Amino acid sequence: MENERLDPWGNSAVDNYERLRSEFGIEPLKPLLTRFKHPSLHIRRGIDFGQRDLGRVLDAVDSNKSFAVMSGIKPTGVFHLGTKMTADDMVYFQTLSKKATVFYAIADVEAFNDNGLSFQQSSKIAIQNVADILALGLDPERAVVYKQSQEIRVMRMATIFSKAVTNNMLRAIYGERQVGLYLSALIQAGDILMPQLPEFGGPKPVVVPVGADQDPHIRLSRDLANSYREDFGFIPPSAIYHRLIRSLDGSTKMSKRSSNSSFALDEDPSSAAKKVMSGLTGGRPTVEEQRRIGGEAEKCPIYDLYLFHFAAEDEYAKRVYDECYGGIRMCGECKQELAGIVKKYLEEHRRKRDSLMKDAEELLENSRKSLDSMPR
Amino acid sequence: MENERLDPWGNSAVDNYERLRSEFGIEPLKPLLTRFKHPSLHIRRGIDFGQRDLGRVLDAVDSNKSFAVMSGIKPTGVFHLGTKMTADDMVYFQTLSKKATVFYAIADVEAFNDNGLSFQQSSKIAIQNVADILALGLDPERAVVYKQSQEIRVMRMATIFSKAVTNNMLRAIYGERQVGLYLSALIQAGDILMPQLPEFGGPKPVVVPVGADQDPHIRLSRDLANSYREDFGFIPPSAIYHRLIRSLDGSTKMSKRSSNSSFALDEDPSSAAKKVMSGLTGGRPTVEEQRRIGGEAEKCPIYDLYLFHFAAEDEYAKRVYDECYGGIRMCGECKQELAGIVKKYLEEHRRKRDSLMKDAEELLENSRKSLDSMPR
Repeated sequence: MENERLDPWGNSAVDNYERLRSEFGIEPLKPLLTRFKHPSLHIRRGIDFGQRDLGRVLDAVDSNKSFAVMSGIKPTGVFHLGTKMTADDMVYFQTLSKKATVFYAIADVEAFNDNGLSFQQSSKIAIQNVADILALGLDPERAVVYKQSQEIRVMRMATIFSKAVTNNMLRAIYGERQVGLYLSALIQAGDILMPQLPEFGGPKPVVVPVGADQDPHIRLSRDLANSYREDFGFIPPSAIYHRLIRSLDGSTKMSKRSSNSSFALDEDPSSAAKKVMSGLTGGRPTVEEQRRIGGEAEKCPIYDLYLFHFAAEDEYAKRVYDECYGGIRMCGECKQELAGIVKKYLEEHRRKRDSLMKDAEELLENSRKSLDSMPR
Repeated sequence: MENERLDPWGNSAVDNYERLRSEFGIEPLKPLLTRFKHPSLHIRRGIDFGQRDLGRVLDAVDSNKSFAVMSGIKPTGVFHLGTKMTADDMVYFQTLSKKATVFYAIADVEAFNDNGLSFQQSSKIAIQNVADILALGLDPERAVVYKQSQEIRVMRMATIFSKAVTNNMLRAIYGERQVGLYLSALIQAGDILMPQLPEFGGPKPVVVPVGADQDPHIRLSRDLANSYREDFGFIPPSAIYHRLIRSLDGSTKMSKRSSNSSFALDEDPSSAAKKVMSGLTGGRPTVEEQRRIGGEAEKCPIYDLYLFHFAAEDEYAKRVYDECYGGIRMCGECKQELAGIVKKYLEEHRRKRDSLMKDAEELLENSRKSLDSMPR
């Protein structure tokens, strides 16, 4: 266990969050909670549980200085609940300050390599993905959206970084991998550090919202920021870590490809509702037993859905939890209730997203123009 | 010896050209000699000794079809005799047909990584390097010159290719290397295959003039051309191989950094002449012995300089050889003669190059504009 690695490409569920702190040096988020005036749902509920150097970003908020929020998406057609979690965090950090700029990378090279999507295909999907994040509240006025395949700065940095890393460093962080995966990691480091280039206003705090399994990319980026401090003045990027949601079917990591483990934001609302109805729960073998000793909400994928996404009010989430533990709430009715909420949410989201497709296209186009006109 | 590798990054002198044919599959150039109406100095004298699929390029010449000539330079301030050899071959293939386009990559990312040159520094040097190749006869009307750091197509292809190669493949070709060197190799494959992208007119024969030590890059590019035939329609690139010139000081590979092993085209002519005068020769221990049994021209770095570069007429090169073997020509006078030729050549080259600096700047600028305006 001592040398266990987090695996951004694997299937390992990360359950022991304490271990992440002690072994990988991810700091708890808790001590910083008082610094948020209006903490987000994820922060309030402990779904965002860890951070690295997040104080630096909160300092920028307090002193009205520029900072960046960085993440990306692989445009393969699915905007997943995990993607939503990251997107929610990005939108939240953008609301913290008028000086916040969101950088959103469309990983179309990965989509070509991993999923065999042509650049034309992924280009169309990208518009829909951008509409998704706009529907979740992204302010396009302070957002830079770019395709990796088009962004020479990212590629150039990946190439430069490739000379500073040794195979041993990469093996220590990622394990023995094919060179293609190492290069992906270096490209992601390029994405994460790009907001600090001179053409974007130079060195600044950057926060990357990620699942704990993505921490290796954060560590690599921070190592590289230190290696190239002299050349670029990089400040090591900050990160905020969210817990991974349980899959509906009990599979270890909620996969975009495993159809019953979760549902996507563009999924047919009735199909998503059905998945909820057939999901695993933290319930007892019999109704009688559940009434007597209560269910186990903290082991329940259905409760996770309430907590992470669909119980907008804290009180409501708490009520679900209490009723479950008190043996008042039975799994069937609990699922039924959630299925209704999910269905309504997806219908509403689809409406919003469809109305934002033009805006998404414009954001992509405007970003491209503004990036192309910058010095390279 | 069975599994010995050619090493583009190493110091191994490649002496046994027969072995290159039998072990690495480099075909002899000789059977194709009759297809050249006016063979170049390198081809006539067997300095270009091998090829892969060169017939395909000669077919394009004969049938007046498009083809490309591809190579590059690391802009570190030195246009070396080895660089000149490649440049001479490029210029020669360009003269073979009006349908030939030269692609010349400025490897500024490598200059940053390997030599610590900033992009501003290497950008200035690049202009001088381009002026050098213009002075050697490149027709700018049919040349595309680009900086690797600016060319998203090359970077994107390197990224795509990184997923098709396994570590085992790379190890088999290059040996166990750091990931940065593997990435360099993939970028060079991107350079070599770029001329076949749709925006450059699609698949076509491409000839890459290289030293035998660079063959691993050719093999990798050919493997990748086959792997991505379906996606891009790539034709495996052709290559022509030149012998490596002996270093003046007996070091195994003429290094750009080892100051006494060779001289550069921008070197002070008197300093270059001095290096010639202090160079090793294939001479005998005493004048008496040399008169009696003759010198050994084919082991002589000074004769190499005559043969590869400075004896423009075949008859003159032959005379130097015959006189050496006949014991008529002594090393001192032979060097003196060469020193004079070298001095004059470098003075002349410098004059030409200086007068072409503006043209070089324009070629770089025009190429950039035309590349930027192409679909990406």
